[in-house]
Amino acid sequence: MEGGFEEGSINLVTGKTGTGKSIFSAQFLYNGAKKYKERGLYITTGDTVKNIKKQAVKLGWEMENLEKEGMLKIIELEPYDIEKLLENMAISKEMTQSKRIVIDSISMFELYMQEPYKIRKSLFSVLQKLRDMGKTVLVVAEVPEESKNLSRTGVIEFMVDSVIVMQFLGIAKYKRSLMIRKMRVTNHSSEIHPFEIGANGIKILKI
Amino acid sequence: MEGGFEEGSINLVTGKTGTGKSIFSAQFLYNGAKKYKERGLYITTGDTVKNIKKQAVKLGWEMENLEKEGMLKIIELEPYDIEKLLENMAISKEMTQSKRIVIDSISMFELYMQEPYKIRKSLFSVLQKLRDMGKTVLVVAEVPEESKNLSRTGVIEFMVDSVIVMQFLGIAKYKRSLMIRKMRVTNHSSEIHPFEIGANGIKILKI
Amino acid sequence: MEGGFEEGSINLVTGKTGTGKSIFSAQFLYNGAKKYKERGLYITTGDTVKNIKKQAVKLGWEMENLEKEGMLKIIELEPYDIEKLLENMAISKEMTQSKRIVIDSISMFELYMQEPYKIRKSLFSVLQKLRDMGKTVLVVAEVPEESKNLSRTGVIEFMVDSVIVMQFLGIAKYKRSLMIRKMRVTNHSSEIHPFEIGANGIKILKI
Amino acid sequence: MEGGFEEGSINLVTGKTGTGKSIFSAQFLYNGAKKYKERGLYITTGDTVKNIKKQAVKLGWEMENLEKEGMLKIIELEPYDIEKLLENMAISKEMTQSKRIVIDSISMFELYMQEPYKIRKSLFSVLQKLRDMGKTVLVVAEVPEESKNLSRTGVIEFMVDSVIVMQFLGIAKYKRSLMIRKMRVTNHSSEIHPFEIGANGIKILKI
Amino acid sequence: MEGGFEEGSINLVTGKTGTGKSIFSAQFLYNGAKKYKERGLYITTGDTVKNIKKQAVKLGWEMENLEKEGMLKIIELEPYDIEKLLENMAISKEMTQSKRIVIDSISMFELYMQEPYKIRKSLFSVLQKLRDMGKTVLVVAEVPEESKNLSRTGVIEFMVDSVIVMQFLGIAKYKRSLMIRKMRVTNHSSEIHPFEIGANGIKILKI
Amino acid sequence: MEGGFEEGSINLVTGKTGTGKSIFSAQFLYNGAKKYKERGLYITTGDTVKNIKKQAVKLGWEMENLEKEGMLKIIELEPYDIEKLLENMAISKEMTQSKRIVIDSISMFELYMQEPYKIRKSLFSVLQKLRDMGKTVLVVAEVPEESKNLSRTGVIEFMVDSVIVMQFLGIAKYKRSLMIRKMRVTNHSSEIHPFEIGANGIKILKI
Repeated sequence: MEGGFEEGSINLVTGKTGTGKSIFSAQFLYNGAKKYKERGLYITTGDTVKNIKKQAVKLGWEMENLEKEGMLKIIELEPYDIEKLLENMAISKEMTQSKRIVIDSISMFELYMQEPYKIRKSLFSVLQKLRDMGKTVLVVAEVPEESKNLSRTGVIEFMVDSVIVMQFLGIAKYKRSLMIRKMRVTNHSSEIHPFEIGANGIKILKI
Repeated sequence: MEGGFEEGSINLVTGKTGTGKSIFSAQFLYNGAKKYKERGLYITTGDTVKNIKKQAVKLGWEMENLEKEGMLKIIELEPYDIEKLLENMAISKEMTQSKRIVIDSISMFELYMQEPYKIRKSLFSVLQKLRDMGKTVLVVAEVPEESKNLSRTGVIEFMVDSVIVMQFLGIAKYKRSLMIRKMRVTNHSSEIHPFEIGANGIKILKI
Repeated sequence: MEGGFEEGSINLVTGKTGTGKSIFSAQFLYNGAKKYKERGLYITTGDTVKNIKKQAVKLGWEMENLEKEGMLKIIELEPYDIEKLLENMAISKEMTQSKRIVIDSISMFELYMQEPYKIRKSLFSVLQKLRDMGKTVLVVAEVPEESKNLSRTGVIEFMVDSVIVMQFLGIAKYKRSLMIRKMRVTNHSSEIHPFEIGANGIKILKI
Repeated sequence: MEGGFEEGSINLVTGKTGTGKSIFSAQFLYNGAKKYKERGLYITTGDTVKNIKKQAVKLGWEMENLEKEGMLKIIELEPYDIEKLLENMAISKEMTQSKRIVIDSISMFELYMQEPYKIRKSLFSVLQKLRDMGKTVLVVAEVPEESKNLSRTGVIEFMVDSVIVMQFLGIAKYKRSLMIRKMRVTNHSSEIHPFEIGANGIKILKI
Repeated sequence: MEGGFEEGSINLVTGKTGTGKSIFSAQFLYNGAKKYKERGLYITTGDTVKNIKKQAVKLGWEMENLEKEGMLKIIELEPYDIEKLLENMAISKEMTQSKRIVIDSISMFELYMQEPYKIRKSLFSVLQKLRDMGKTVLVVAEVPEESKNLSRTGVIEFMVDSVIVMQFLGIAKYKRSLMIRKMRVTNHSSEIHPFEIGANGIKILKI
Repeated sequence: MEGGFEEGSINLVTGKTGTGKSIFSAQFLYNGAKKYKERGLYITTGDTVKNIKKQAVKLGWEMENLEKEGMLKIIELEPYDIEKLLENMAISKEMTQSKRIVIDSISMFELYMQEPYKIRKSLFSVLQKLRDMGKTVLVVAEVPEESKNLSRTGVIEFMVDSVIVMQFLGIAKYKRSLMIRKMRVTNHSSEIHPFEIGANGIKILKI
C-alpha cells in the first residue's frame, strides 16, 4: 500500500467507526518518515495531539523521536479555520515543509459547513493547492453506520484521486478489510484485502 | 469486561430500548466500587435518582451503603447544563473525586442540541476534559428501533475509544448479546457475547 | 399478564392500528377493578367517553356499574392540556384516587408537540410524578404502518419501565400476538404470545 | 360485506390508485338505497358529480332514478370547507337525512391541512359528530404507490372503527383483493378476499 | 391500445427515463390523425417543437404534412402558464379544435408548483375542463429512477381515468413493456405487454 | 461507441465515483480530434486544467499537441456562471468553433442551484442552444453511492437524448461496465458492456 499513493495526489480513506482509518493514516506518515525519510504532517480536527500520541505509543511507534527530529508534526485544527487553512502561517509552513499530509477527519468540515456545494468548493480549493504543491495527501472521512455513501455528504469522493474503503465485518473470518474503490487513470486491482491491527499497526493478510 | 476499559478512556454503550444499557452501566460503577475500590459517579439525564436506586435494590446491590461510604454518587442533570457541566462546582467536585463516570444518556444532549456539529463540539470538549483527567468514562446512547446507527445523530461513535453494542434478539436462543464494535488501537476480539440479566446483574454466557 | 405490571411502573403498550391496544388497556382497568378492587382512570385523547363505553358493552363489561361504584372513571383530554395535566384539579383528584391509570394515546401528545426533546421532557415530568405517586400506569402508543419504531417519535420507549408490542400478522395462523420487548431489571421471557379478542376481551392462547 | 358495517361506525377504505375504492364506496351507497332503502350521501373532494354519474351508468346503476326518488345525493366539497362541514346548511341537511355517507376522499384534507395534528383534530370532530348521529360512514383514503401506510399522513387509520385495505396484485392470479385490516372489538376474519369489477360492480370471489 | 382510450377521459402514461413515453404519446396523436382523422395537439413543457419533429422524422412520420393539413399542432408551454392554460386564447383555440391532446410532461408542473395540494387543485381544474369538453387526453409523467410512485409527487395518478406504466427491464428478454395499472370502471386485463420501438414507432409483441 | 452519438444530441454519462466517467468523456474528445478531425471543448467544473492534462499524459494522449493544433480546448467553469454560459464571449467562441463538447460535471450545477425546477430550466436552455447549434454534447453526472437515480436531483436524465450508465462491480469478474440506458427514438441494444481502463483509455471487452 505504502508506495501506492502517487506524489501530488489526494487520497480518501473512508469507513465506519472502528475500521482502522486513523491507524492507517498514522502508519502512512510513520512509514513515510521511517522508511522514506519524508516529513509528515497530521492535521486532526476531532482529536487531541495528546490522544494521538498515546495511541502511537501503544503501537510501539517512537513519535516523540520523530517529532524531535522534525520528521513529524501533529496539529489540532478547528473546522471553522478551513478557509484560512493556507493563509495560516504556522500551518502553511508545516505544509510547505512536509511531503505527506493527513487530514483526520474531513467529516468535521462536512458537519460544520452543511451545504454540499459549499463543502465541495472550500475543500476543493484547499486540496487543489496541496496537489499543486506536489504533496501526497490522505484525507479521512467518517461514514455513519446506516449510510452507503463514501462520506457524510456524498461529495468528497468525487474530488479525490483514489478512494480506500475500510470495512469491519463482524461475523466474517477476517474482521477487517480494505478495498481500493477508485484509483484515477489506472485499472486498479479492486481486490478486497483483509488486515489485522497487530503490535505494530496494520498488517495486510494473504488470503 | 470489567477490567476491559482503559484508564482515561471514553467508552460508548449503545443499543435499542430494553437491551440492558443502564444495568450494564450501573454494574460498571458498582463493581468498580465493590471490587476495585474506585469511586463512581452516575450522571442521569432521563431518569430520577429514586428510580435508579429502586432498580439497584432489585438487583441486590447495596447502593445506599456505597453512597454513605462515599463510593458512589448519583446526580440528575438537565441537558441544557451541558455547557456548564465542568464549571458547575458540585458536579466538578464529584467528577474530580470519582474514578469511574457514567453519563446515561448522552442521547438527551443529542435531542436537545439537534445540530450534529454542535453536538460533536460540545460533547467532545466535555469528554476530552474527562479523558485528560484520567477518568474511565462510560456514555450511554439510545438508538431508535428503526435506525442502524450507533447513536441518534451518528456522530458520538466517532469521538470515543470503544463502542459496545447491546442487542435484543427476540427470536434467537440467547435473547441478549453484546458486541465490541470498536476498540482503539487493539485488534479486539469482536465476538458476539450472549448474556443474561440475572439476580445480580449482567452475566456473560459461554456459547 | 395482569399481575405483571409493577406498582409505580410506567408501561408502554405499542402497536399499529387494529392490534388491540385499546382493548388491552381497558381490560387492564376492568380486571383491576373487578378482580383486585383497584380503582381505574382512563384518559382518552383521541376518542370519546361514549365510544369507549359502547365498545365495553360489546365485550360484556359492566362499565356503567363500575363507574357508579366509583371504581372506574373515563376522561377526555386535549393534548394541549399536557402541561397542566397534574395541576388540573379534576384530573389530579381522579389520579390521586385511582391505582391504575391508562393514557390512550400518548401519540396525540407526540403529534401535538412535534419536537422530540420537548415531548420527552414534558411527558417525563408527568409520568415521573405518577411513578412517584405509586400508580401503575399504562400508556398507549400508535405506530404508523411503515415505521419500525415503538412510538411515533422514537423517544417514548426510552422513558418507560416496560414495553409490550402488539402485532397483527395477516397471513400467520395466529393473527394477533403480543411480545414483551422490554422489562426493566428482570430477565423477562420475551416469548411471542398469540391471542384472540373473544367475547370477553383478550385471551392469551397456548402454542 | 354490505351488512358488515355497523350503524354509527366510521369505516376506512384505503388503497393505492386503481384498486377499486370509489366503486366499492359507490356500491355501498347504491346497495344501501336499493336493497335496504337507506338514503345515501356521496361527498366528493376530488372528482365531479358528472364524472361519478358517468361511471355509475357504465355499471348499469340507475343513479339518476335514485336521485329523483331522493334516495341518493352527490355533493362536491372543497377541502378548505372541512371546518364548516357541519355548519354548512345544505350539507348538514343532506347528512341529517342520509343514513349512509361516503367521503371520497379524505386524502384531499390531508394534502390541504398538511400538519398531522391538525388533520387528526379537524377530522375527528367531523367524524365523531357523524358517529354520534348514528350514520354509517365510509371514508376513502389514497395511498401513494411507495408508501406502506394506510393513509397519506398515517393518522386517519387510528380514528376509525374499521379499515378495509384494497389491493392490486399485478402478477397474481386474482388481480384485486380486499382485506379487513382492523375491526374494532370483534375478532374479525382478516382473510384476503379476491374480487372482480364486473358488469354490476364489485363481486367477491370464492377461493 | 389505440382504440383503448375513451372519449372524454384523462389518461396517464408514466415511467422512468427512456421507457418510450414520448414516442407512445406522439404515436397516439399520429395514429389519431392518420387513421381516425382526429386532430391532435401536443403540448410540450420540456422539449422544443424542433426536437419533437426531428424525432418524428426518424420514425418516418410525416408530421409536417399533418401540420399543414391542420391535423396536428405542437406547442411549447411554460409551467408557470398552467393557471392561464385555458384562458390563453391560442392554446384554447387549439384545444377546442383538437380531439386528442397530449401534455408532455405534467412533471414540469409538479416541479414548478412543489406543494402537492396546489398541484392537485390546479391540474384537476385544467384536466376536468378538458374532460368536460370531451377531449381524449394523455398526460405524461416522469418517475425518477429510485421512486416507486407513479408520478413525482404521488398525486397525479389519483385524478386520472387510466394509468399506463412503461418499463425498461435491462436484463429481461423483452427490454420494454407497458402495463395497464388502472382503468376506471372496467375490469381491465392488467397483463404486461412487451413492446419494441421499431422503424415506425411502438409495436406490441406477442408472448 | 464513438460513432454512436448523433450530431446535435445531448448525451449523459452517469455513474458513481471511480467508474471511469471522466476518462470516457476525454476519450470522446480525443478520438474525435484524432480520428474524425472534430474540434473538442472540455468544460470542467470540479477539476483543474492541470489535473486533466496530467491524467491524459498517463494515458499516452498528446493533449498538448492537440491544443497547439487548436483541436482541443480545456476550460474551467464556475457553476454560478451557468446563466452567463452562452453570453460569455470566450466560452461562446470555443463552443461555436468546437464540434464535440464535454461538460464535466453537471452535478456541480445541481449542487449549486439546489431547486430541481431551476436546475431543469437553466440547464435545458443551455443544452437546447447547443443542440440547436448542432454540437454533439456529452454531460457527466455524478451519482452518490447510496442513490439509485441517474443524477443527483433526478431531473437531468429527462432532458437528454441518451443515457450511458457506468458501473463498478467490486466482486464481479469484469469490474467495470457501461450500459446504454436510454437512446431516443432507436430501439437500442441495452446490453451491458464490460470494459477495462488500459494503457490508452477505455477498451470495451467481448463477453
